[in-house]
Amino acid sequence: MSLELVSEVSIRDVSPRDGLQAESKVLDTRAKLDLIDGLALAGVPRVECTSFVNPKLLPQMGDADAVMTELTRRSRTHYSVLVPNVMGAERAVTRDPDEMTVFVSASETHNWKNVHCSIAESLAQFQKVMVVGRQHTIPVGAYIVTAFGCPYEGVVPESALLDLTYRLFELGIRMVTLGDTVGVAQPLQVQQRIRTIRQSLPGVSLGVHFHDNRGTALANMLAALDGGVTYFDTALGGIGGSPFSPGAGGNLATEDAVYLLEEMGVDTGIDLDALLTLGDRLAEELEHPLPSRVRQARGRMVPVGREGELHE
Amino acid sequence: MSLELVSEVSIRDVSPRDGLQAESKVLDTRAKLDLIDGLALAGVPRVECTSFVNPKLLPQMGDADAVMTELTRRSRTHYSVLVPNVMGAERAVTRDPDEMTVFVSASETHNWKNVHCSIAESLAQFQKVMVVGRQHTIPVGAYIVTAFGCPYEGVVPESALLDLTYRLFELGIRMVTLGDTVGVAQPLQVQQRIRTIRQSLPGVSLGVHFHDNRGTALANMLAALDGGVTYFDTALGGIGGSPFSPGAGGNLATEDAVYLLEEMGVDTGIDLDALLTLGDRLAEELEHPLPSRVRQARGRMVPVGREGELHE
Repeated sequence: MSLELVSEVSIRDVSPRDGLQAESKVLDTRAKLDLIDGLALAGVPRVECTSFVNPKLLPQMGDADAVMTELTRRSRTHYSVLVPNVMGAERAVTRDPDEMTVFVSASETHNWKNVHCSIAESLAQFQKVMVVGRQHTIPVGAYIVTAFGCPYEGVVPESALLDLTYRLFELGIRMVTLGDTVGVAQPLQVQQRIRTIRQSLPGVSLGVHFHDNRGTALANMLAALDGGVTYFDTALGGIGGSPFSPGAGGNLATEDAVYLLEEMGVDTGIDLDALLTLGDRLAEELEHPLPSRVRQARGRMVPVGREGELHE
Repeated sequence: MSLELVSEVSIRDVSPRDGLQAESKVLDTRAKLDLIDGLALAGVPRVECTSFVNPKLLPQMGDADAVMTELTRRSRTHYSVLVPNVMGAERAVTRDPDEMTVFVSASETHNWKNVHCSIAESLAQFQKVMVVGRQHTIPVGAYIVTAFGCPYEGVVPESALLDLTYRLFELGIRMVTLGDTVGVAQPLQVQQRIRTIRQSLPGVSLGVHFHDNRGTALANMLAALDGGVTYFDTALGGIGGSPFSPGAGGNLATEDAVYLLEEMGVDTGIDLDALLTLGDRLAEELEHPLPSRVRQARGRMVPVGREGELHE
């Protein structure tokens, strides 16, 4: 009957990784570094910078080493990277990220399609990643993708999600992000799953990562916030998702999340104007408009009906 | 900490009025009748059919008489019309609508810009409209537009909104719809205003009418739902708003609202597939794509990363 929100949240902008990997145009390293530093300077506390994936499979992430080496490190910013397996982790640790993030699907079919192995095999990889992380004192977090629904298997049972979270916890992972990879989560489900995991595994810090295929990302964010979550993934401009239908299935836009959170009195520490300016540069680099709704509404005197006409 | 939703809601589709009045292409009466009847057949319980405004000022609504005369009346559907003043009401009652809806801004500047008179003068008009309504036993409802924020005056004080609602109640109006005309409401504010009005004026049935300029309409709907509201305005395809920037400031799309409500187990009585098909016809008539996000996601196997690539 009444929303109860926390007073501050921590946003992780994933546009340099989840955002750019969906783009057909490969940005040069300089543009990526400008993007990452621009996010840091705008006050974004956490940035997912790149992915240590096989460059042959994902050319956009081919400069992961260069990005992490040439990065300007700001003391207030947390720089994380995605690692798909132990090979990626071994590359990543030489570049000293603040965190490595592994990923596994909550549905077997999606895991097979995405990384060509079973969930159990993914977990076995993570055990090796944990060893590498410990050797270099770099924390390892995890994404559970298709945490709400899977495009192949439909709704993912909550029990499967809880079980997988428990297995990640057993491996020593303490930061788990629930990904709504294809934008099929709904607010009640979001709250229910958060509640279940928090009650069963209070030692796990939960984040959420919503894609906006059906325009539901902001409503899901609100539900997660009301459920006590404070870690949110977003992407500048709302980029991400499918490379074949730009704008349709991107991440929740950082601008849109920050706008609504700050309007509600929830502190993000992020300067919205700086984000909008940074988005101008990104749109120019990517050579297409960005889907963020706040961006589209910016600077326009909001029309309220043509003057002199009698209508509501 | 936990959303509590009602089990069913009543949607009013305002696309034939609020939607079309923002379109530059004037549809012929036949197309409007097909739209209205298509909505009724899809199960939409309430349709705002037209506006009895001066046709010289708003050519799109020039066929209000014809629309209401030629309408196929379905027994389960409630057909309402907008009336700006007593002249409009006198025209409207000859066409036997199920309800007439008047409108007034919660901010003086907006009321002046919109209808060239003060709020007090608008209320004086409504008194006359009430007389006409009673003579013909046609109920009169009201929109309070800029109920959350005004493009000229900024945030509208809650006290001004409550006072205006009270004055409408005094006139005998029992159904009041709070309009977020320019898409600046936020969920906590929505809940707070709903709570205040419901506590102060329990005799008023409250509806909400969100525009989506900043992508916040669905989150605001969720907040209103959690606040106990059961009357929601939406427009097929998400049309509406500014005629100068199509898609940017439309109404909450009926498809998007119905999708999310039904996913959450809230009954709307509306067939989403029928809405999507009806939207195809509307997009063809209007000669542009419609902004509804669920519409854009339809029929696409949601992409989850190109097969064979190692990424989350």
